[in-house]
Amino acid sequence: MDTLPSQILENTVNELSKLPGIGKRTALRFALHLLKQPKSDVENLASALTRLVTEIKYCQKCHCISDSDLCPTCSNPNRNQSIICVVENIQDVMAIENTRQFGGLYHVLGGVISPIDGIGINDLSIADLLERVEKEDIKEVILALPTTMEGDTTNFYLHKQLQKYDVSVSTIARGIAIGDNLEYADEITLGRSILNRVPFENVFKSNR
Amino acid sequence: MDTLPSQILENTVNELSKLPGIGKRTALRFALHLLKQPKSDVENLASALTRLVTEIKYCQKCHCISDSDLCPTCSNPNRNQSIICVVENIQDVMAIENTRQFGGLYHVLGGVISPIDGIGINDLSIADLLERVEKEDIKEVILALPTTMEGDTTNFYLHKQLQKYDVSVSTIARGIAIGDNLEYADEITLGRSILNRVPFENVFKSNR
Repeated sequence: MDTLPSQILENTVNELSKLPGIGKRTALRFALHLLKQPKSDVENLASALTRLVTEIKYCQKCHCISDSDLCPTCSNPNRNQSIICVVENIQDVMAIENTRQFGGLYHVLGGVISPIDGIGINDLSIADLLERVEKEDIKEVILALPTTMEGDTTNFYLHKQLQKYDVSVSTIARGIAIGDNLEYADEITLGRSILNRVPFENVFKSNR
Repeated sequence: MDTLPSQILENTVNELSKLPGIGKRTALRFALHLLKQPKSDVENLASALTRLVTEIKYCQKCHCISDSDLCPTCSNPNRNQSIICVVENIQDVMAIENTRQFGGLYHVLGGVISPIDGIGINDLSIADLLERVEKEDIKEVILALPTTMEGDTTNFYLHKQLQKYDVSVSTIARGIAIGDNLEYADEITLGRSILNRVPFENVFKSNR
């Protein structure tokens, strides 16, 4: 890294290079770019960052990011209040919302059980999920967790806990992605796609 | 782009995506990363950005970024005060400083003459450069501008202007980069490297 002619610049470069995937050289490019912008643009960025960490809330029901105590999904009366889709994080909520195929509610766990990373049951919002299943009129819980060892562990734990309640538990379908060749699919995915085959007349059936 | 569950988050993503080379998706990754960091880290970043645009100065002599009215180079009595190296921007100053081969002063033009981009002589710090050459005891001006059409135009203009003063004008050597094969070099560079050949005994001579 070059020696910089200014402490203020160096400080900004150091802070910017803490962003994921950003090295000192890119951070310097950002800083020099910002110096060429109108002062108000940079002040807008700075205040957006400050507001992000001071004003943002998490939905008290589903733990998704929100501007108020209840997120837009949880406070929408048109959503099906009897289905909860359990996901690892907020990005997963956005990905599912983007498909426009799900009309129920969400529950963001905030991670998956991972002893190696020191993430246990009490670090996740599992107790809150069970409380929702107990108190709200929930008929189905869809588990949409990653197919990793940690995701599967969490799936099994949640399934076991949810059996105590009068609720059906499902997981999202795993199989060959649309457009993919069978030839290049891994054996586990292909095997699972045969075991979990779907009656043809059900393929396009929606249960929103 | 996914619909975001929060206006505050969306605002931050919009501001971050104004950084060069950063799209909405990467900006979202930055924002969600920042949300997981300690609040003080994000506030440090925000205040570094604010300080960058409010407190940073430009050296009154060489126009380089600086924390005070004179940059560390211009205020260093050990630098050779009689040689000025003219560069396009601050990154070029840092690149040359990094070589540790130059002990003189700099002059940052802030760009090169480019009629297409609407950059004329008065948009650059050319008048300041000529004033320095006139008032300071300058013996040599090294032109280290890019080898583009705009860079060459600026070179010629500066050379013409500098002829009015008792100062020698040079440009940095253009040639085959160290480690490069002649075979793959472009004809113009290779041709110039033969025209501007250097007596062997001068190759490692330093004139710091």
